This record gives sequence, C-alpha cells and structure tokens, in this order.
Amino acid sequence: MDIGIVGLGRMGANMARRLARGGARVLAWDREHAASAALKDEPRIECVEGLAALATRLDGERVILLMLPAGEPTQGAIDALLPLLSAGDTLVDGGNAYYKDSMHRALGLSQQGLRFVDAGVSGGVHGLAHGYCLMLGGNPHAIEIFEPFARILAPGPETGWLHCGPSGAGHFAKMIHNGIEYGMMQALAEGFALLDARKEFNLDLARLAQTWRHGSVVRSWLLDLTAEILAQGESPERIAPVVADSGEGRWTALESIEQGVPAPVITMALMARFSSQGRSDYARRLLAQLRARFGGHPVQHKR
Amino acid sequence: MDIGIVGLGRMGANMARRLARGGARVLAWDREHAASAALKDEPRIECVEGLAALATRLDGERVILLMLPAGEPTQGAIDALLPLLSAGDTLVDGGNAYYKDSMHRALGLSQQGLRFVDAGVSGGVHGLAHGYCLMLGGNPHAIEIFEPFARILAPGPETGWLHCGPSGAGHFAKMIHNGIEYGMMQALAEGFALLDARKEFNLDLARLAQTWRHGSVVRSWLLDLTAEILAQGESPERIAPVVADSGEGRWTALESIEQGVPAPVITMALMARFSSQGRSDYARRLLAQLRARFGGHPVQHKR
Repeated sequence: MDIGIVGLGRMGANMARRLARGGARVLAWDREHAASAALKDEPRIECVEGLAALATRLDGERVILLMLPAGEPTQGAIDALLPLLSAGDTLVDGGNAYYKDSMHRALGLSQQGLRFVDAGVSGGVHGLAHGYCLMLGGNPHAIEIFEPFARILAPGPETGWLHCGPSGAGHFAKMIHNGIEYGMMQALAEGFALLDARKEFNLDLARLAQTWRHGSVVRSWLLDLTAEILAQGESPERIAPVVADSGEGRWTALESIEQGVPAPVITMALMARFSSQGRSDYARRLLAQLRARFGGHPVQHKR
Repeated sequence: MDIGIVGLGRMGANMARRLARGGARVLAWDREHAASAALKDEPRIECVEGLAALATRLDGERVILLMLPAGEPTQGAIDALLPLLSAGDTLVDGGNAYYKDSMHRALGLSQQGLRFVDAGVSGGVHGLAHGYCLMLGGNPHAIEIFEPFARILAPGPETGWLHCGPSGAGHFAKMIHNGIEYGMMQALAEGFALLDARKEFNLDLARLAQTWRHGSVVRSWLLDLTAEILAQGESPERIAPVVADSGEGRWTALESIEQGVPAPVITMALMARFSSQGRSDYARRLLAQLRARFGGHPVQHKR
C-alpha cells in the first residue's frame, strides 16, 4: 500500500492525508517547499526531495498519483518521471486534463510498458473529511492496481468511485460533471440575485437557503455551501464580481459543439463567467456606441 | 389541531396524510369523488361533501389549506368559501400562485377580517415521507396560527419551514426556488445528454449518476432522482421529449426582466422547455426556408 503523490496543492495535500489516514504509506513531493512542509507532521506521509527520490523509494510496481494543473505542469512531471520509471509502473493523473489529451497520454505511456489511469476527482476542499468522488478511466488491470487507493479516497470503499471505461472516460466524465456544476451553480446564483433584488420583502436569504436544505427540490451540496456563505454574512462589496473559469467548462461547451448536442444552459453559464471577467466589455462598448449613433442615446465616458 | 384541506391532488392528499399522521384532525374535500375516496381509510382524515360541510364542521377560528392549481381553481374556491367564513378564520394557499396575486388576495381578505398565508410548498410526491419545505408569507399572527401545522408538514418541527416575510413573500420565494430548479435540472439533463452522445466510452450512466451521489460537487436531490430514473432503465424511446412548464418558470423570467437583474440560465432553461413543446417550430421552419433561399440548401418536407 505505497503510493507516490506529486503535487501538494489544495487537492493533492488533502488526498495525501486521506490516503495516509486510511492506511497507505505516502511518499509526497511538491516543487514548493512550503507545500511539503505543511505535511511534515502527518503520520505515514514522507515528503521527499524530488522525483528521483520518489521513484527510488517506492518498491515494486510503483503507483504515482499526479495532482497537478492540467497541461504543461502535468506533462512536465510525466516527462521528468519517464526515465525514472519501469514497465509495470502506474501513473494516475488526478488533475483536470482534457480527456482527449488523456487518451493520447495513455497510448504513449502504454507503448513504454507503463499503465495509466485518468482520474476525475471531485469534492474540493471538503474531500478530506467527506471523501472524493472518483471517475476512473483506463484498462481493467490499471484500475485494479489503483483500486485499493480509490477505496480509501472515496467516501466509502464501495461508493463514490467508478471505473467509467477505457482511457479518457474518467476525465470525460469529470469534464461533464464540471459542466453540470457550472449550470447548477449559475442557476442558484441567479435565483439568489433575484431574491435579493426584491427589496420590499426584506428576505433573510441565509435563513431561506437554510430552509431550502430541508425537503425542497433544490437541496444540494451547492445549496449547502450557499447557505454557509450567506450565514457568514460577509459584505458583498468586499467580493469582486469576477468568476474564473478553468478548462472544464470550455471543454464541455466544445463537446456540445463537436457532438451537435445542445447544452444551452451549461454554455450560457460559461459565457456568464466570461462576461464577469470583463470579456463582454468590447461588445458592450460597441453596443453603447451604436445606440448613440442611431438614437442619440448618450454614451457614458470613464473619467 | 383541526384543519380543512381543499384539493386532494398529488400534493394535497399527501399533505393531508402527513398532517393526520402528525396528530392533526383533517377535514378534506375535493370536487373529484375519487380523490376523496383514496383517503377514506386514513385515520384522522374525514372527507366531507362540500365546502359548506367543511366550514360547518371546523370549530372556532378555522384554518383551511387550499391545495389547488393557481388561478381560477384557487380563486373559485376562495369565492365559494367567503360566505361560509367568519372574521378570524385563516386561509392558507399552498398552490403555486403568482406572488403579486397573493399580495392582492391577502389585502382583499384582510378587508373582510380574514387572515391569509401564502405558502410555497416544495417536496413533490416525496414530501409525505421526507416532509415539505414551506415558505410562508403573511402577517405574524396568521403565521402563528398556521405554525403548528407547518411544524408537522416540514421535515422537522424546526427545519424546512420559514416565515419569509409579509404577504407574497412565501410565494415569491417559492417562485424563485422553482426558477432555480428549472436551471439545475436543465444543467443535469444537458450533461447526461453529452455523456450519452459520446458512444465510444460506452458509459454506464446509471452507475455514474449513482457514483456522483457520493462526494461529488453536483450531489443533489435532483441527481438522486436522475440516478433512480437511469437505474430503472426505461427505454428512452418510450418517453416523449416534451417538457411542460407551469407558471413559476415564466414568472421568474418576468421577475428578471422587471428587476433588470440577469437570469440567463434560468431563462434559457424556460426557453428550452418551450422549444420542447414545439414552440420553436415556426422559427425553425423559417430558418430552413431562409437557408434554402439564400444558399440553395434543401428544405426537408413532411410527407
């Protein structure tokens, strides 16, 4: 039950803790010393000096979980690990890679005798306590090797993890999961905005969110988080109205286009995030100018 | 602890059962004899012959819960009840009325000395077992009178029910709740459609939905229902791809327009339902004809 973990960010560090608390011996590495230092008092977790030490100190057929940002960081770590690995070793990519990249990666690694699991991981910062939902792609033997770790990471040994299908299927399922998440959270956010706007009712939104958690159709973990946020009562003025997006929402929208299967709400939720990032500003300025040109409506100018 | 219930459809009948099982004595009426007959073996529920009998057989300050479709059926029942009621009686509208109608209704009834509670009720057919989420609007005294019944109907005496604010606030909160529901369920449906479309992974969607219920960010009651539906495995071809809409989604979209607060995902979910009802067909035909006219692209003709 030895596993190496590369990348000790928000997700990786807590997954290392959950694995260690579940009985695995964890060898961990992060290029940021501070990330490793945060784990130094955790029993059964040993932070090593680099990828070479990680590979050397794991015995037998090694299992290494990558918890890195998709793209270059993940590819860089794989490139650095390759000369250190042997046939029969298993790499598990728990990052949010595009599933087509994972399919290519699995093929390339298999040609070098390495096993690969693409692991979609959901659960966020609460996963340490509640367990992580794991969507796994790969051939059955690779999954079998990772299974003991999946059973610890998941909310229960038999629940919350699934061998979804061949390589790519895990990251594909995670991509769509996140697309759904975009739509669900946008719907919640819009609804609370409408509740807030009707001032005459002076609604206590924190209590309403709390009430909806019990027996309503919209009860959900995202609503639970909304209720927590509203209960904390942080002044909205202190939060910039800007919502970042990572790759998953964009890839889900691309999937809709590639398959020709409509996903208007998910796509709209993505577009709403783009707008929040100021990416509608060009169009908005042009619209304001067009209204001025045909209707003489004044354009607001910045000072 | 006596209450009258008018309207014994899917919601009303189960609310009558939950109230009776919780210790209330229920006098119930529905204009459909079959609806009353279905309750005849329920202890503590007595089905009466008409509204006059309902009013006569309730003692003291009467509490009558209307569980009727919004609009004419609800207004008709109120009109028929009015001559039978006395000052101090309380009417509770548990239907999905537009909150502005409820505000007017409360005002009109108060002028006749009657109390009025607008009660948004969520929970669907599962409310009998799990309890109903109740969003209540009205003046504090009216709410106080209804409170003992709310404590039985809700999932717990202290959870899942809320005095939201003055008259209209309950139905307003329920309207927005349903708008959020439109968006959340559309996001889920779109995601599963994209999962289904990528045939090469041959995903077991029932198992994936079940997996997501544990530890994922999208876990929710709507996902629980999706998992149930997929597990039953009914052939999709047997389900017409038509989604009805009741008033709540439309009113939420109107609220967005009236307040000038964007609700693009909720509105898009509503539009998607309209499309499913064939209400995009005019535009689609015109689009097909326009493509033919400028590009010579053939139009499909029905046989």
